[in-house]
Amino acid sequence: MAGPSEIVPVILCGGSGTRLWPVSRRSYPKQFGPILDGDTLFARTVRRVAAPGYAPPLVLTTSEFRFIAADELEAAGVEPEQAGRIVIEPEMRNTGPAVCLGALMLAARDPRALMLVLPADHLIRDEAAFHRAVAAGAAAARAGQLVTFGVRPTRAETGYGWLELAGPPGAGAGPDPEPHPFLRFVEKPDRARAEAMLEAGRHLWNAGIFLFRAGDILAAFDAHAPEILAACRRALAQGREDLCFFRPGAAAYGASPAISLDYAVMERLGGGTAVPLDCGWNDLGAWDTVWRESPRDAQGTAARGAALSIGCRDSLLVAPEDGPRLVGLGLEGMIAVAMRDAVLVAPMARAQEVRDAVEALKRAGAEEAEEYPRCHRPWGWYEVLARGPGFQVKRIMVRPGGRLSLQSHVHRAEHWVVVAGTARVSIGEDVRAIGPDRSCYVPIGERHRLENPGEAELHLIEVQSGFYLGEDDITRYDDVYARE
Amino acid sequence: MAGPSEIVPVILCGGSGTRLWPVSRRSYPKQFGPILDGDTLFARTVRRVAAPGYAPPLVLTTSEFRFIAADELEAAGVEPEQAGRIVIEPEMRNTGPAVCLGALMLAARDPRALMLVLPADHLIRDEAAFHRAVAAGAAAARAGQLVTFGVRPTRAETGYGWLELAGPPGAGAGPDPEPHPFLRFVEKPDRARAEAMLEAGRHLWNAGIFLFRAGDILAAFDAHAPEILAACRRALAQGREDLCFFRPGAAAYGASPAISLDYAVMERLGGGTAVPLDCGWNDLGAWDTVWRESPRDAQGTAARGAALSIGCRDSLLVAPEDGPRLVGLGLEGMIAVAMRDAVLVAPMARAQEVRDAVEALKRAGAEEAEEYPRCHRPWGWYEVLARGPGFQVKRIMVRPGGRLSLQSHVHRAEHWVVVAGTARVSIGEDVRAIGPDRSCYVPIGERHRLENPGEAELHLIEVQSGFYLGEDDITRYDDVYARE
Repeated sequence: MAGPSEIVPVILCGGSGTRLWPVSRRSYPKQFGPILDGDTLFARTVRRVAAPGYAPPLVLTTSEFRFIAADELEAAGVEPEQAGRIVIEPEMRNTGPAVCLGALMLAARDPRALMLVLPADHLIRDEAAFHRAVAAGAAAARAGQLVTFGVRPTRAETGYGWLELAGPPGAGAGPDPEPHPFLRFVEKPDRARAEAMLEAGRHLWNAGIFLFRAGDILAAFDAHAPEILAACRRALAQGREDLCFFRPGAAAYGASPAISLDYAVMERLGGGTAVPLDCGWNDLGAWDTVWRESPRDAQGTAARGAALSIGCRDSLLVAPEDGPRLVGLGLEGMIAVAMRDAVLVAPMARAQEVRDAVEALKRAGAEEAEEYPRCHRPWGWYEVLARGPGFQVKRIMVRPGGRLSLQSHVHRAEHWVVVAGTARVSIGEDVRAIGPDRSCYVPIGERHRLENPGEAELHLIEVQSGFYLGEDDITRYDDVYARE
Repeated sequence: MAGPSEIVPVILCGGSGTRLWPVSRRSYPKQFGPILDGDTLFARTVRRVAAPGYAPPLVLTTSEFRFIAADELEAAGVEPEQAGRIVIEPEMRNTGPAVCLGALMLAARDPRALMLVLPADHLIRDEAAFHRAVAAGAAAARAGQLVTFGVRPTRAETGYGWLELAGPPGAGAGPDPEPHPFLRFVEKPDRARAEAMLEAGRHLWNAGIFLFRAGDILAAFDAHAPEILAACRRALAQGREDLCFFRPGAAAYGASPAISLDYAVMERLGGGTAVPLDCGWNDLGAWDTVWRESPRDAQGTAARGAALSIGCRDSLLVAPEDGPRLVGLGLEGMIAVAMRDAVLVAPMARAQEVRDAVEALKRAGAEEAEEYPRCHRPWGWYEVLARGPGFQVKRIMVRPGGRLSLQSHVHRAEHWVVVAGTARVSIGEDVRAIGPDRSCYVPIGERHRLENPGEAELHLIEVQSGFYLGEDDITRYDDVYARE
């Protein structure tokens, strides 16, 4: 439970980050993926607000990512069962309904609760400066303002919305940022407009970070988007607990307009309060912004993982550590991102259009458009190594304590070969332990379960045989993760 | 055995084609690989001279590729056991010693035998024109000339050597090309020199295709490169049969200078005889020439296999049919070639430098520089699907009748799961048949053998366990392919 002066971070992690394809995909979006070296963006966001003055966060995500989010919260030292909650958005309806839902949950306890809306996928280099800006915003929010954080622009960026202030927002990164009134939101501008705003010096980028009291933003929803408020109230009333998650009513939530907080409410207020944010902010929205945040060589090229730059300039080369090997030869201002199943090559200047490329792939029926090769499950992950007529080979990792559902398949038999750790395998009535270099066979139709009772990760190779090998050939009899 | 008027094709397939990396690699070079759709370049070369007037070919290759070459010959209707032979070059010593060896073998039967030297990796679109040029060359060769074929230049190419004629080589692709005297060979020129030669109109590209009597070229070796001749004579004397292959003596052959036929002999003759070749010739030496030979869309882009062009111009996008998915977005004049284990991106204009990139990769210790992911063996092929600490997963195909050696491993155990076809497996004293969806286990140290006694391909998944998994952990007791 938030203390009276604490700020509750409301972390939105529903984005799909398609402009960062192929590393970010619908099934494993950028906030959870290896966009930068080290921690994921979601983990960085959680850690940033695991600080004095903040209550445990409220996290809004979709059903698909609930276990990943719970794991990352736990890894960041936040027990999902604690005051902060993981709320499952029944479907993606953009940030408007998500924020409204969060506000309703907080207001039920205290309408004066301060909520800090944070996208899960932004990078902030200077955390101290971030906290100073939040403190300045909190003072304004406690006085009833709806605060929008604005980043001092460094280039004529056409990929963001902007805020127009009445005058210049004061000098640089002062120790104490001050709230400024602003006149209006400016939609993503064209190049000329962006350059004019950069020149004028009284505009900020809209970072999509907001701070307000729960009761105040609900009042604004009531005034400007009552249909969202009504839908969210119903969804909340129809919600239910599910393990450590909270699931609002799906039909009610789905009835809300799918619209951003900006469009639904903030832009209709006729100006507002902005706090300048000078904290090394980057939304990592597309590969060009990732390139800006990456360590680069003397020729301006960033080569990560198994990538090798040979005489490239101002380029970004990305490959996982374990391959594929990516060689860029003599590139200038290019993006090349290689994964085992998908590769993107484009000029840096067209980074925004990667989204369209993914749409084209979807239309072409290419599963790489949306499906990430490593599939995360509550018990661990699996990856398809090879497919052929009548067979499929998977690599499977079961985390310590992980337990797959008791299941059977109508169309396929499975061979399991353990390569690391020890499995507890139940096949029919038989239960046994299988260590490294040992195998077992699960005939078609047989009930079986795989568990990792040990302290180390369990790795195994599964060879499936059968004429139909789809993931939907599964009958679950019992599942500790409450899947259907 | 060649008839007296027949021409003996001497096919050189020792090249490694590093400028076509990553599709062409030392372990599986371009003449055997999927550079163009359809037949390999080696198979096209063999078929081209499986025509009236030609004797069966003499093929020179290295030990690594002997079974691939034999298979392709057989597939092209040429029994390797017949008059034509597969000669194993003990090591790569460039084309000088290879041609000398071939000439010695032919001259032993008849010094007047006409030999047509053909690189295995060239594309020739107009076979009728090719045969007309060969016929014209044969007349000159029978009169004692050493004939060099020259391609009428269509661009100021700096990647080839050129031939300087005394005058223009006559008009276009006439029905009967005529031999022309030429003054000298011109080494790979710089851009200005190439443009001047293109302008002058009395130069041809040196296609590396030659025609002469075996005795005549040996006389030229004797005059200009006697150390090559001596080394090849000794290598031949020390040679031995090995299945359907002939292996010249390794030490003797290794003592020959490693030098091209051009440098060793042809350029020292002070001019010679050229026959113009107007046959849609392309050496497919680098990705830019492959692009020229590939079907292109209205924007000049060639996208093959799983590649997708989105608004690309004058670019080449290559990916295998079964992935990875390659997306080129807004590229201009670029090459992008994607395989599961390696990806190349470079401007078309720098296609020649791919060779340097491969060298850089080798220096960096990257095995993708030289090793192709699918390893061809006399019994079929295998491919590594995954590696991890203490394990490795392979997909193995054994062709009908294929028989791996009787072998054992000191450091690893193996699980085999059959996914298609039927295996005959010997483990210790036990011999059994294993069909689809069945598996077996080979303990460390146990003698074992895998065979495909059936009529269909045998596919299986092998999971290896052990702390050392190198290919050199193999003791062979018996091998139908006479490997050591």
